[in-house]
Amino acid sequence: MIFCWKIQLTELFGEKNKDMTINLKMPINKELLNIPGIKLATSSAGLEHKDCKDLMLMVFDNGSIVSGTFTQNKFCAAPVTVSKSHLKSTGSIKALIVNTGSANAGTGDKGIEDAESTCEALALALNVNSKEVLPFSTGVIMSPLPAEKIKTAIPDLIEDLKENNWLDASEAIMTTDTIPKAISTSVLIQDQKVNITGISKGAGMIHPNMATMLAFIGMDANISLDMLQKLNKEITDTTFNCISVDGDSSTNDSFMIIASNKSKHTQIVEENNNYKILKMAVFDVALKLAQAIIRDGEGATKFISIEVQNGDNIDGCKKIGMSIAKSPLVKTAFFASDPNLGRILAAIGNSDVKNLDISLIDLYINELLFASRGCIVKDYDEEKIKKEMKNSEINLKVNLNKGSQKATVWTTDLSYDYVKINAEYRT
Amino acid sequence: MIFCWKIQLTELFGEKNKDMTINLKMPINKELLNIPGIKLATSSAGLEHKDCKDLMLMVFDNGSIVSGTFTQNKFCAAPVTVSKSHLKSTGSIKALIVNTGSANAGTGDKGIEDAESTCEALALALNVNSKEVLPFSTGVIMSPLPAEKIKTAIPDLIEDLKENNWLDASEAIMTTDTIPKAISTSVLIQDQKVNITGISKGAGMIHPNMATMLAFIGMDANISLDMLQKLNKEITDTTFNCISVDGDSSTNDSFMIIASNKSKHTQIVEENNNYKILKMAVFDVALKLAQAIIRDGEGATKFISIEVQNGDNIDGCKKIGMSIAKSPLVKTAFFASDPNLGRILAAIGNSDVKNLDISLIDLYINELLFASRGCIVKDYDEEKIKKEMKNSEINLKVNLNKGSQKATVWTTDLSYDYVKINAEYRT
Repeated sequence: MIFCWKIQLTELFGEKNKDMTINLKMPINKELLNIPGIKLATSSAGLEHKDCKDLMLMVFDNGSIVSGTFTQNKFCAAPVTVSKSHLKSTGSIKALIVNTGSANAGTGDKGIEDAESTCEALALALNVNSKEVLPFSTGVIMSPLPAEKIKTAIPDLIEDLKENNWLDASEAIMTTDTIPKAISTSVLIQDQKVNITGISKGAGMIHPNMATMLAFIGMDANISLDMLQKLNKEITDTTFNCISVDGDSSTNDSFMIIASNKSKHTQIVEENNNYKILKMAVFDVALKLAQAIIRDGEGATKFISIEVQNGDNIDGCKKIGMSIAKSPLVKTAFFASDPNLGRILAAIGNSDVKNLDISLIDLYINELLFASRGCIVKDYDEEKIKKEMKNSEINLKVNLNKGSQKATVWTTDLSYDYVKINAEYRT
Repeated sequence: MIFCWKIQLTELFGEKNKDMTINLKMPINKELLNIPGIKLATSSAGLEHKDCKDLMLMVFDNGSIVSGTFTQNKFCAAPVTVSKSHLKSTGSIKALIVNTGSANAGTGDKGIEDAESTCEALALALNVNSKEVLPFSTGVIMSPLPAEKIKTAIPDLIEDLKENNWLDASEAIMTTDTIPKAISTSVLIQDQKVNITGISKGAGMIHPNMATMLAFIGMDANISLDMLQKLNKEITDTTFNCISVDGDSSTNDSFMIIASNKSKHTQIVEENNNYKILKMAVFDVALKLAQAIIRDGEGATKFISIEVQNGDNIDGCKKIGMSIAKSPLVKTAFFASDPNLGRILAAIGNSDVKNLDISLIDLYINELLFASRGCIVKDYDEEKIKKEMKNSEINLKVNLNKGSQKATVWTTDLSYDYVKINAEYRT
């Protein structure tokens, strides 16, 4: 009898293999800060496997505001369409609900109806408008949403609502994740302590089409909706949009920031010093959540940071980083700790960047220079590079020697286990 | 003692595994047609492993013309830079030389000098201008060209020149290929028999950075340089630019067509009926050579055709096809014969195509409809689809139901052996 992904993954690979990569993972954080104005609840509604938490509800006090970034995938899921439309139609969001088991993607008009009717049922129970509820789904693509089971679980969920429920919430949204991902921080703004807590899920996709990166950050900071949206975009660009396990962005990816506005500092309505302090703290939480996804990436044995420096513009630096991060040839070389460094040059050359001058580029692994001005260095010592590549945390630096902009992206290696997880799970 | 890739691959996987995929490969064709005006030679110059053919020379009679398409990778190799410059500076090409062992890429100014000096030595021996010689390299990236060894082998090569040497030539350019790839056809143009013979190499990249798709088609057709260049572009767009093993285009990819102009039909100087007859025949040879690369793709157990129909434009259809072909999640699902069909929807949604209407799309595997108007069909029978996915040749059809344009691309699945070949070769 198998109930949870976590158990299944252990059975698939054995404890030994799990140990091999355990040092990569972000440790489970049990010291999470409550966010005044935000309550959470979880439930085992039987959507996935018996006894697994599979539903999560967040309810926000009046005055809370929400901003979201959603997948660019054109085959976006019904809950993404519905959440975007609800966010557009009202500034006031009172609750969000997340189910696992079904992604409610590729489900056509019925999928939209199911997502809407779930919002309606929850709105009725909470005595709010159904447009004030946002739905999120993750799980099997092209499988109908078990809307009735979700609706049946609503009373129990509401009963369970409490502020100190973030860890449970991070477990309830897991699918192929092997560990829950949650983290907190706090900052002082005008001597007021502002709490920030975030959770995320995602590890790639597993059969049967488990998909989706989801992340939710709650905080009691006091901020206008305009500035929250700006914050969300700026944070996404440098965190969740800078990670890649396998280059496939899902139909359901969503990143939401909820501000309960409970803190007593002056409301942030412009890009002032308070905004900067808050942004730095939220960035820190978002980055750790994004990196936690990479650290828990399917089959990952290595955590690879790719730092692209001194380019003409940030976008170009990011494109080069992502071209390296997505190359199966680079990723298998990292898996094998094999200095196939020409593959990195080739991946840079394949990036869709204008005015790339390859004769200027320097490349480093963990600060060891191995290519200078586009050519291998004269005193190249393969054994030294190989030793560096054996680390489970690797920093690859690309110096474009052209401008002053930079970007960093994060990725995993490509191992047998990636193929195993994605090809063999069901057999 | 290991000498050739072919033997090494057998040792790596055993005969059993080779048998599993042998039916995928293009059979070795020993009935190749000579091309009047084109002579070929091969040599074992010790560039790679002892006793392996590693050098290939083609020499063209006066009046021959050559057109080429080269890699778009910005980190292009020295021989690509030199070949492009020679082709630009003269309409008259007399010879081309191909070495394995070193790709002469990431080698800076020294690489250019080495490629040029090889051309000079060959030009001297053939009594032609060095600009009339084109160099090609495939092998290790960031490794210097063994120019002296190549020069030393030139007299033997010239000695060996003969018209009926295409099969040997196809073997000499192999790197990680497990079989040589060569094919011939002929057509009648104004009652004159025109012979067309082509060879290609490529299977992905293997350590140590073996790279590169190379293809050479020779023919005695009589055609102007303008029209040959047009032919080359049209053929490349629908054959070699429609295949993907791992999404990584190499630093050295080159496709050359050589017309010796010996045939007695009227010279083709416009897009007339003779052009169309010739194009159809060259297309056939190029397509089989391109598909042979996929059939010999690293770790491939399946040959997958992705046909995208009824789009607004060809470019969009091709982008959608390539987005599916490059998705690791789709490729592992095909490896496992597991109908993770939502992955195909997600890959389509990830393609960079404007005005994509997902609510119109129908999807078929081997003519079995499994998604209609963007949703899974009501009478979906997973067992039937699974049975179709177990075939080693699979046709995936995407009907966009929007316009009248179409494109087809070809790819492989992603297997353990891909990771094995690319990660573990040297260990």
